[in-house]
Amino acid sequence: MKTFDEALAYLLSKVVPITKVEEISIHTALGRVLSQDITSQFNVPANDNSMMDGYAVRAEEIRAEKVFHISQRIAAGSVGEPLEKGSVARIFTGATMPQGADSVIMQEEAVTEGEGGVKFLVSSVRPTQNVRHTGEDITQGTVILAKGHKLRAQDLGLIASIGMAKVEVYQPLTIATFTTGDELLEPGERAEAGKIYNANRYILAGLIPQLGFELIDLGRVPDTLEATIEALKQAASVADVVITTGGVSVGDEDHIKPAVEHVGQLDLWKVKMKPGKPLAYGHVMDKPFIGLPGNPVSAFSTFNLFARPFLLSMQGQKHVLPQPIWLKAKFDWTKKGFRQEFVRARLKNQGKDTVVTIFPNQGSGVLTSTVWADGLAVIPENSTIKKDDLVAYYPFEMI
Amino acid sequence: MKTFDEALAYLLSKVVPITKVEEISIHTALGRVLSQDITSQFNVPANDNSMMDGYAVRAEEIRAEKVFHISQRIAAGSVGEPLEKGSVARIFTGATMPQGADSVIMQEEAVTEGEGGVKFLVSSVRPTQNVRHTGEDITQGTVILAKGHKLRAQDLGLIASIGMAKVEVYQPLTIATFTTGDELLEPGERAEAGKIYNANRYILAGLIPQLGFELIDLGRVPDTLEATIEALKQAASVADVVITTGGVSVGDEDHIKPAVEHVGQLDLWKVKMKPGKPLAYGHVMDKPFIGLPGNPVSAFSTFNLFARPFLLSMQGQKHVLPQPIWLKAKFDWTKKGFRQEFVRARLKNQGKDTVVTIFPNQGSGVLTSTVWADGLAVIPENSTIKKDDLVAYYPFEMI
Repeated sequence: MKTFDEALAYLLSKVVPITKVEEISIHTALGRVLSQDITSQFNVPANDNSMMDGYAVRAEEIRAEKVFHISQRIAAGSVGEPLEKGSVARIFTGATMPQGADSVIMQEEAVTEGEGGVKFLVSSVRPTQNVRHTGEDITQGTVILAKGHKLRAQDLGLIASIGMAKVEVYQPLTIATFTTGDELLEPGERAEAGKIYNANRYILAGLIPQLGFELIDLGRVPDTLEATIEALKQAASVADVVITTGGVSVGDEDHIKPAVEHVGQLDLWKVKMKPGKPLAYGHVMDKPFIGLPGNPVSAFSTFNLFARPFLLSMQGQKHVLPQPIWLKAKFDWTKKGFRQEFVRARLKNQGKDTVVTIFPNQGSGVLTSTVWADGLAVIPENSTIKKDDLVAYYPFEMI
Repeated sequence: MKTFDEALAYLLSKVVPITKVEEISIHTALGRVLSQDITSQFNVPANDNSMMDGYAVRAEEIRAEKVFHISQRIAAGSVGEPLEKGSVARIFTGATMPQGADSVIMQEEAVTEGEGGVKFLVSSVRPTQNVRHTGEDITQGTVILAKGHKLRAQDLGLIASIGMAKVEVYQPLTIATFTTGDELLEPGERAEAGKIYNANRYILAGLIPQLGFELIDLGRVPDTLEATIEALKQAASVADVVITTGGVSVGDEDHIKPAVEHVGQLDLWKVKMKPGKPLAYGHVMDKPFIGLPGNPVSAFSTFNLFARPFLLSMQGQKHVLPQPIWLKAKFDWTKKGFRQEFVRARLKNQGKDTVVTIFPNQGSGVLTSTVWADGLAVIPENSTIKKDDLVAYYPFEMI
């Protein structure tokens, strides 16, 4: 039996990252992974500019009640003249500071006087006050975003701010999946004694696109060895990765195992984790194959814990392992298990105390536990947890 | 001046939720918001079934070394006969328990004997052991997901597990946005003295689709009152909400303010928050209008803090306010401010201590701070923070 960490480390060691890249507009680049470092050709801001609507001044000239001549007006987008000594410039947020001016007095601290004059309600101003300095945000030549970074909204804004309209990103991974199993009904079909509805297909139809991958759902495959082999071949020919659920327990009766062995190679693992345990990794022709457990709670958990980092890494992403948040347990866990447990959990605030609560029924048949939960908390192997002990919590959004 | 809480409460009080609904396949329902409660017509599981591959037995009959006749074989998906007394049934994971059997002995604890016989390596078994019970996951008649819930992968799985192929959801909100401002260049255009690249357009092009809304980007509008009025009219006629950035500070020179007042109504607020401060809310014809600040850091922050809950609520979602995670500050904040500050922050683990770190330059002109950060931490107004004080942290994924 492998530990969870051993199984994960082995999987990640097998990753061959995708190399296909494409250049796309930043307007549609949300969630895509950079295939190149992004280096700024500019300083941002390119020049000292005003942080406020107000008056650009020479700090050393400022005296209370002194009336200054407004010698020019500089709107955002325009460039002023050098500032005449003894005068000030009306200036607006974002406008380039005129040469000679070193600070800005905000308009709320100014009173206009007669024709083109202004006096200030402050008796002094600190040089550089209310001025954004050249290169304060980005210095020319800096790598602002590294290869392997997954683009968020603010990243798109930052790339735009250095004038880049396009970025080079990896093509999205395509992931093929299909379902076998005579005991399964599709939602919408009439209930039948002994049969259960297929939940895993729809869990994967959520998880895979959510991570930015393209899902190729090959649907339902007849429960024979030949049909399973054909489906695997088709999956491997259209996708970068093949993922199935079920059929990977020791003693399982279905055709996934012999079919994968027929067209590739398969390792079956027992992992010391709960939910989870059976996990399969191998190849179908030259494409990686991951076989998740058939139990929906286990399929959901092992997808998040194993398949997700494997796929993100294959997609070229650099940081694929989630960081836990250590918080106090609001529960007791008295039964030591020899397998590491990933329990369905949720945070709760009690004043300024954020604590981890868990769903009362952690049975692996209880899919409602994953719906109730906002994340997973870890119970290490051979451990008990007492209330107020620190536990590692992983929000679903961040794993 | 409004406090942050006052401004947010006012905005949320103005929400008129969308009423347009549609019925869609659960295969494409990720991220959509339920417009009806989902109630299960079934128990899940529908019958007692086996959690293991093994043997279905009568617990009271089990003795060490006793050989039992295997009277039937029940695969998943099929229904067995009532269990003959003194015999056991070979059974597989998920298969319905035969009448009379009350527990399952896993196959690892069994040894087959001669023709159709088996003995067990355990001398007893607890009744109900390794059996999933009728209704253990879902009891018939239970609301499994409530109206206003945003569908995640596990929710789709749960809906599938009760046999539903379609769900009724709200139509996605459409949000129109456009850009004005002579000082702005689009990425890809040549740099020009005094001008800056438009970052906000691309920040919105990330944030809006990420939340599941449809973005209608009307692009660049000439910087005249007439063109701005026309753009507002067009935006309000094609979208449910109009959002712009910039032009909402007191003293601002651009045309957004008079244009909105021309075709609707506008309130300009100063909010006691940083970054942020200027915020506008009103109507363009009969559609809500939100005017975010022009500064990209402020636009990003105020979108997340104000526009996001407003829009989610309008989309019909029930829980729209993020819950903070209270964690220890790894920084000192010595300067009391009269505005509540939302500082760009990131978590760091030191052993089992998860602490909040902040970007050194919290200047509102520094967009790199939002890119460095994974979330926002709150410095309440008129407060200082000492290292190890608890601060409220909001991960970007969860706000």
